[in-house]
Amino acid sequence: MESSLKIGSAQLGPISLAESRYDVVKRLLALLYKAHSFGVKFIVFPELALTTFFPRYWMTNQVDVDRYFETKMPNEVTQPLFDAAKKLGIGFYLGFAELSEEDNRIRRFNTSILVGPDGKIIGKYRKIHLPGHSEKRDDVPFQHLEKRYFEVGNLGFGTWPVFGTRVGMAICNDRRWPETYRVMALRGARVVVLGFNTPTENINHDEPLHLRMFHHRLVMQAAAYQNGMWIVATAKAGYEDGFHLHGGSCIISPTGEIVSQSTTEDDEVIVYDCNLKLGDYILNSVFNFKKHRRIEHYGPITSQTGVDDLIDVSSKL
Amino acid sequence: MESSLKIGSAQLGPISLAESRYDVVKRLLALLYKAHSFGVKFIVFPELALTTFFPRYWMTNQVDVDRYFETKMPNEVTQPLFDAAKKLGIGFYLGFAELSEEDNRIRRFNTSILVGPDGKIIGKYRKIHLPGHSEKRDDVPFQHLEKRYFEVGNLGFGTWPVFGTRVGMAICNDRRWPETYRVMALRGARVVVLGFNTPTENINHDEPLHLRMFHHRLVMQAAAYQNGMWIVATAKAGYEDGFHLHGGSCIISPTGEIVSQSTTEDDEVIVYDCNLKLGDYILNSVFNFKKHRRIEHYGPITSQTGVDDLIDVSSKL
Repeated sequence: MESSLKIGSAQLGPISLAESRYDVVKRLLALLYKAHSFGVKFIVFPELALTTFFPRYWMTNQVDVDRYFETKMPNEVTQPLFDAAKKLGIGFYLGFAELSEEDNRIRRFNTSILVGPDGKIIGKYRKIHLPGHSEKRDDVPFQHLEKRYFEVGNLGFGTWPVFGTRVGMAICNDRRWPETYRVMALRGARVVVLGFNTPTENINHDEPLHLRMFHHRLVMQAAAYQNGMWIVATAKAGYEDGFHLHGGSCIISPTGEIVSQSTTEDDEVIVYDCNLKLGDYILNSVFNFKKHRRIEHYGPITSQTGVDDLIDVSSKL
Repeated sequence: MESSLKIGSAQLGPISLAESRYDVVKRLLALLYKAHSFGVKFIVFPELALTTFFPRYWMTNQVDVDRYFETKMPNEVTQPLFDAAKKLGIGFYLGFAELSEEDNRIRRFNTSILVGPDGKIIGKYRKIHLPGHSEKRDDVPFQHLEKRYFEVGNLGFGTWPVFGTRVGMAICNDRRWPETYRVMALRGARVVVLGFNTPTENINHDEPLHLRMFHHRLVMQAAAYQNGMWIVATAKAGYEDGFHLHGGSCIISPTGEIVSQSTTEDDEVIVYDCNLKLGDYILNSVFNFKKHRRIEHYGPITSQTGVDDLIDVSSKL
């Protein structure tokens, strides 16, 4: 078993509404070759990496929505990415909007796939923590309609043995929830990869803008340490037709430290030679789950969704 | 309902083996009066605040161990603290080693109490995440025998309505586990208070020393944000008979920011006027639990203690 793995985070700058998937795949290919020049064996692309971040737009005609979705993966447009990855022996994570026919109906998910160095899809994840809202809001500068355009993922938090380790996938807002990482850690994940599109402005509050980047990093750094895992997070960044996404792609070690981070809001590759054993001392001591976790006291985490209704309302939110 | 609360964190410098509880209570009283001079209404003392951090010592005679325990609270030595708090109208959190007779046997816990501004005990917590080991280790510079000297807490993670909000308690190593805060948040906690004694040196690994303080802050800052809660953490700090505790008392806002922190390793009071509504926007939007949590995918958190035994061993720790 390899004890180190060269991972790359391949950030994308903005994708305009006017840009075609063909052009985007060219950009992904350029990033793939750049990563290869570093000796990278596993590259992480963003969430919804083939189109603009369309959940910011209110659309009433399903045809308009569906043009952002892929009905097959790989498909004609993305096949060159799979071919190049196979040729170079690089595995990848790719996020895209997935339209599939299941249970005799059309279903739509915010999806990521894990592709092995042989160019074959070995894992699929469908976003579980969909943020935003499902109806049009008139009180905000832009929409965040993930709850409208996607169903909640139905595949759970999977983990897959590959690259001499075990990899888990998440997508964007999943990263803010400690449950995401804990479930994957309990399923053996030692590397968690995720893509994101995060608006710089919090439409729900006049929160200082700098806190958005702070929170983005904080939740992942804590999770990396608390689960003794590597986390690789890749942004789509910059101004998409006037709407700013905050960027901040980074690679986080199991000590919770950011060991590499992007410096632009454009197409950019960052890499790190990840020591896959670094988290062992953490999982063998302070976070030896078997020795220290006390699940008999964690009940509410899985038995109730919101705050206990029996709690005295005067002190509730 | 008050929308702000002046909270103080009353850090203790070292307590030597040679120091009597009477002297320690004098120090606690001085801190209480200092806090009162700031207008503080709720003061947080450390874990095991009446004695040295005795789990660092290997003891084979139970009598030697039991002299660090309290059989009653308040007792003759601590009564002046309760009296002064009542006189000043200040509530407090206090950690101590608790010896009680329950179920017809002697039981020992690492305990904290929540005392209201009327001087009455309104809540008790017994530490759930006991760190360390239960047998003597010869490979380490000092012991960490909490698993030997204490039982795992049997009261769960409680929360109590007081000070115009709802308060939860944790102790030391509990703060490193995201489950701690989540359970309390689901039980309505908007302020979590905790005391700690944390050795500067990680006896399990030659981890860079600076990471200890980083991790201490990281886990609490993430938890404050992820649960939209205030967190107040109070250290016992400095050299106790040659063994260094890292200090770092702090008050963390629901944005995850450290808004006040200690600057010494000695007796010291820090205060903050906590806006009890600050976390509302977080719990109403990004972390609206009822709207966004997906408990159907969190199963392993409460159904399994360690890493899934079915996971392919080659990729397991």
